[in-house]
Amino acid sequence: MSRFWNPLVHTLHPYVAGEQPKMANLIKLNTNESPYGPSPKAIAAIRAATDDRLRLYPDPTASALREAIAATHGLAPDMVFVGNGSDEVLAHAFQALLKHDGPLLFPDITYSFYPSYCLLFGIEPRPVALDEGFGVRIEDYRQPCGAIIVPNPNAPTGRALPLAEIERLVADHPDQVVVIDEAYVDFGAESAIALVPRYENLLVVQTLSKSRGLAGLRVGFAVGQRALIDGLERVKDSFNSYPLDSLAIAGALASWQDDAWFAQKRAQVIASRERLTAALQGLGFDVVPSAANFVFARHPGRAGADLARELRSRAILVRHWNKPRIADHLRITIGTDEQCDRLVEALQEILG
Amino acid sequence: MSRFWNPLVHTLHPYVAGEQPKMANLIKLNTNESPYGPSPKAIAAIRAATDDRLRLYPDPTASALREAIAATHGLAPDMVFVGNGSDEVLAHAFQALLKHDGPLLFPDITYSFYPSYCLLFGIEPRPVALDEGFGVRIEDYRQPCGAIIVPNPNAPTGRALPLAEIERLVADHPDQVVVIDEAYVDFGAESAIALVPRYENLLVVQTLSKSRGLAGLRVGFAVGQRALIDGLERVKDSFNSYPLDSLAIAGALASWQDDAWFAQKRAQVIASRERLTAALQGLGFDVVPSAANFVFARHPGRAGADLARELRSRAILVRHWNKPRIADHLRITIGTDEQCDRLVEALQEILG
Repeated sequence: MSRFWNPLVHTLHPYVAGEQPKMANLIKLNTNESPYGPSPKAIAAIRAATDDRLRLYPDPTASALREAIAATHGLAPDMVFVGNGSDEVLAHAFQALLKHDGPLLFPDITYSFYPSYCLLFGIEPRPVALDEGFGVRIEDYRQPCGAIIVPNPNAPTGRALPLAEIERLVADHPDQVVVIDEAYVDFGAESAIALVPRYENLLVVQTLSKSRGLAGLRVGFAVGQRALIDGLERVKDSFNSYPLDSLAIAGALASWQDDAWFAQKRAQVIASRERLTAALQGLGFDVVPSAANFVFARHPGRAGADLARELRSRAILVRHWNKPRIADHLRITIGTDEQCDRLVEALQEILG
Repeated sequence: MSRFWNPLVHTLHPYVAGEQPKMANLIKLNTNESPYGPSPKAIAAIRAATDDRLRLYPDPTASALREAIAATHGLAPDMVFVGNGSDEVLAHAFQALLKHDGPLLFPDITYSFYPSYCLLFGIEPRPVALDEGFGVRIEDYRQPCGAIIVPNPNAPTGRALPLAEIERLVADHPDQVVVIDEAYVDFGAESAIALVPRYENLLVVQTLSKSRGLAGLRVGFAVGQRALIDGLERVKDSFNSYPLDSLAIAGALASWQDDAWFAQKRAQVIASRERLTAALQGLGFDVVPSAANFVFARHPGRAGADLARELRSRAILVRHWNKPRIADHLRITIGTDEQCDRLVEALQEILG
């Protein structure tokens, strides 16, 4: 508290990111990072860009990266917006596109940054309850609102909606912006980018942090029709001209272009997820069907907080929230098979 | 214009950054970049950090960098805030600390991003006229206000205030936040960081883009007492948990620690500035006394827009604003002596 703060600052509930511990030899399954490094081509491109040219400002529009992303989807580059991680892209989207008369609808169990953005930008949040199986029911979003944001797959549940359901949501609200947050889409859901040419109210947000193994580089993007992207650009250029540094642009571009690496690592994560899911079920866990690079699971016999603490004491980090409906769940990032095996062994030990 | 925009978006006047052209063989004296690359130690540190660890999120608090900056000034790390360029640091400062009942005072001729921030965050701007010689008169700031921001040295004029004047400004307004924007301080002004322990209302903002030659890396920081830094952190953590990527943290840290390189390049820029100033005066230019890595100059016989255009046709970029009081001025970044010589030769030719 300080009299020097804008009064708004007192009302904020800042997002609390998963722990980034400095301990070594930890099995870190708590922040949905890829267990694999980025494409070697990304590493090479960053190294090649690391020279005296760092004295120059980056391209403020990151045009090469936007062109590459747009080309993949057969779109024009001005239908792509890039930012410092999808968190920054989301922040600009909340301010530019999701603040209207009327509340913002989003799932009651979802990315916990959304309520923080709402407080920062003065948006009324209206959480919409997931069903008993943690599913998003599109019909529950048929209510007056200012805008909508839904992740697909949702986090921390991992559950995905089929594209036809997403289209129904977008079509149901032609006068509201609908943001689909696809941070985890590459691990088993269908992207709504295919719908962008047909829906002027749709913005799709993705990140290179997860499926491209580049969490350390901070690159995310949004795809939408020109008016939505224009709105994001106007806010971005009123906030920070150059949110992507030169190395992030170079690395993201090379990563984006390495299809083979991307496809291989994605397939490995998906295979490991299915393997881990079976092993957890073998231990008696209820595992929510996941289309993401994590699973959301509870054990009927043990409190989630206990399990998280016991794992931590064995140098394994998972994510746990002390929140209604999910306090007994753990969100476990898919590591390598070896890491998953060590997790399963530890859980066996803990469960006796 | 779009019905999908937050109505605020229609009212914005986004900042227009200096051109980042893709043409080669240009003498680029338009965006105050260093003519020298960053410290070779920064290059080496970035390369060393460019590996599979990019799969992990960066340290959200960039603690190693904050500790290094704090240590230089004998302060605690929690008196330092870091961000994605000083532009992002300023954006958070505008929202967290400069928005109050009452207008924000800043010079009428200054960094043109300030009015853009005011529109974005709903702050009433109240420009305070510079004197005839483009000087800031502290006594003109003795008026009711919500907060104050003054760059020292000012841009695009390059004029600096002595530290005693800055202290007077801060002491005059014990109940308002006073931000001193020191993007150019290393080229000839005294930093107000020395005042921070004594003034709870003072926030000092600096960047590694200019004197550290790292514009491409996007790292800036603020120094202030704990309450002000807390306010910035609360807004940052409601916006983007990890604004500095791992490579930016590594490069900035190594750059910060290379005192010898910093001192040498800074001295070279200052020497070139004095040399260029004399040469421009020899051509009949009025040159505002500069404490920055640029000069602000006009020729009594030629319109500023003409000179900028003629220089551009000779592949030399300088910055020109078509604005009241400064339309005949050019802001010329200090390049290498060779680049400055080519500028002077071109001006000789143009002026006949």
